[in-house]
Amino acid sequence: MIYQRVALIGLGLIASSMAHAMRRAGVAGEIVGTARSAETRSVAAELGFCDRVVETATEAVAGADLVVLATPVGAMGAIAAEIGPHLAPGATVTDVGSVKRAVLDAVLPHIPEGVDFVGSHPMAGTEHSGPRSGFAELFDNRWCLMVSAPEADPKAVARLTRFWNALGSNVEQMDVDHHDLVCAVVSHAPHLIAYTMVGVADDLSRVTDSEVIKFSAAGFRDFTRIAASDPTMWRDVFLTNKDATLEILGRFTEELFALQRAIRLGDGQHLHDYFTRTRAIRRGIIDAGQDTDKPDFGRSGGT
Amino acid sequence: MIYQRVALIGLGLIASSMAHAMRRAGVAGEIVGTARSAETRSVAAELGFCDRVVETATEAVAGADLVVLATPVGAMGAIAAEIGPHLAPGATVTDVGSVKRAVLDAVLPHIPEGVDFVGSHPMAGTEHSGPRSGFAELFDNRWCLMVSAPEADPKAVARLTRFWNALGSNVEQMDVDHHDLVCAVVSHAPHLIAYTMVGVADDLSRVTDSEVIKFSAAGFRDFTRIAASDPTMWRDVFLTNKDATLEILGRFTEELFALQRAIRLGDGQHLHDYFTRTRAIRRGIIDAGQDTDKPDFGRSGGT
Repeated sequence: MIYQRVALIGLGLIASSMAHAMRRAGVAGEIVGTARSAETRSVAAELGFCDRVVETATEAVAGADLVVLATPVGAMGAIAAEIGPHLAPGATVTDVGSVKRAVLDAVLPHIPEGVDFVGSHPMAGTEHSGPRSGFAELFDNRWCLMVSAPEADPKAVARLTRFWNALGSNVEQMDVDHHDLVCAVVSHAPHLIAYTMVGVADDLSRVTDSEVIKFSAAGFRDFTRIAASDPTMWRDVFLTNKDATLEILGRFTEELFALQRAIRLGDGQHLHDYFTRTRAIRRGIIDAGQDTDKPDFGRSGGT
Repeated sequence: MIYQRVALIGLGLIASSMAHAMRRAGVAGEIVGTARSAETRSVAAELGFCDRVVETATEAVAGADLVVLATPVGAMGAIAAEIGPHLAPGATVTDVGSVKRAVLDAVLPHIPEGVDFVGSHPMAGTEHSGPRSGFAELFDNRWCLMVSAPEADPKAVARLTRFWNALGSNVEQMDVDHHDLVCAVVSHAPHLIAYTMVGVADDLSRVTDSEVIKFSAAGFRDFTRIAASDPTMWRDVFLTNKDATLEILGRFTEELFALQRAIRLGDGQHLHDYFTRTRAIRRGIIDAGQDTDKPDFGRSGGT
């Protein structure tokens, strides 16, 4: 056991998966959960992945030695303000948000003396959301990036690291601003681009949605999976990692314009050189075990 | 048997998969293959998926009642000019290119009286290329779009339809310009966007390639698969479907700018509405059987 009592605030995909994974690993004495919506609490109670489901965040954190903020990032500041006075001395507070500068800025002012805040970003997810979508294996072999407040106790950081390892994750410590930039590149900009492409396809009058759907295996389909992710979570990600995301999107637009220009001018050499370079990154991802080299785009035959 | 002798010109992923699928279905009396590169011919001969591998396209088409142009689109005009005088009366010529207007314009002038040209676009592929990458199941349950020259004999079209059905494909007839627009939406623009995003990530100095690779499962990875496709094939696609691709990319850029502006202005409502709309398309793709609803982005656990 690593923590005696873990409070989960928010009971969506990540929190419910954490509960399943905590039970699998036997790392929590008691799991107490809460969510703002009565429906979510009722589903969670029915599924039974928490030992107790309570109505308020204040109740949930009572006596907890680990408190997990598992709501959209935009809600974390208010929750921290609410629970701050009720946190147990010696407790660790963490979050599971996809951005870290905004979370530190919103949460830290409410963390009392004697409580440590250590941010977590489990890089795992599916396009499903809600308490029914959780499963114990979500974090297995995934990265969890940890971003500590400078004043956090190294022992609290080490304990939380052991916790994430027990849930199946590989952990890496990262500086807060570097975290947000890396995530803008590998996650936030790609999500916005995917949302955009899917929106464009949906909005064309000369090509029907049914044609787009029917022939989506030709490339478009790869975008739709990430463009089906939770809208509230992603709204908050973009609003709270604004600068890094806009920087990467600016670079993206610049490159896209250069390629569009090459197409317009018929500059085949430019296109060929560019497309050759991008193959190497794919090879690196496969060599690093982050995807399989199966043909057919890793799908099960499109049937 | 549907054709007595099938000539494959070009022996890459598509042609080698066609050969495997023809053998599985027993639809070709003899399969004759050729490729420009001596190495490709030698690999094909070693693998044995053709009954004969010959040195020139002219030799390959002798006595063939089906001729398949399976090279990058940019090479098809010259090949048609070369083989035109040697085509057998009553033969059907098809291609497997991803664009159709440019192919019709380049090939049709070289098709003699008494020979039919019917374009095919098997919407199937992997990120691998070359004669070793082919497999018999590539076309199973995939769409093959057929675009006929107006003067093509309906009997030739029907026969080629039966052929693609026998190889596992579902066939749909489409008008040439509509084909090129649909493909710009579902395939060509997504590929260019994926290439661009991967190129941007590769080119950043503050985030290393090894970080991009390590954390790619957070969304970026979904782009790398299609950005690893064959550079020559894709160069030709963009150069020959210029207008439709640039039109879709123009729409894409416009939408992307609107979303970037919403991020900059903190307009959460705009973002949330947009991201909600795109979920419906994903649902349609799953309902249409074009992808699975498995969580974890359909990957095998990222291990």
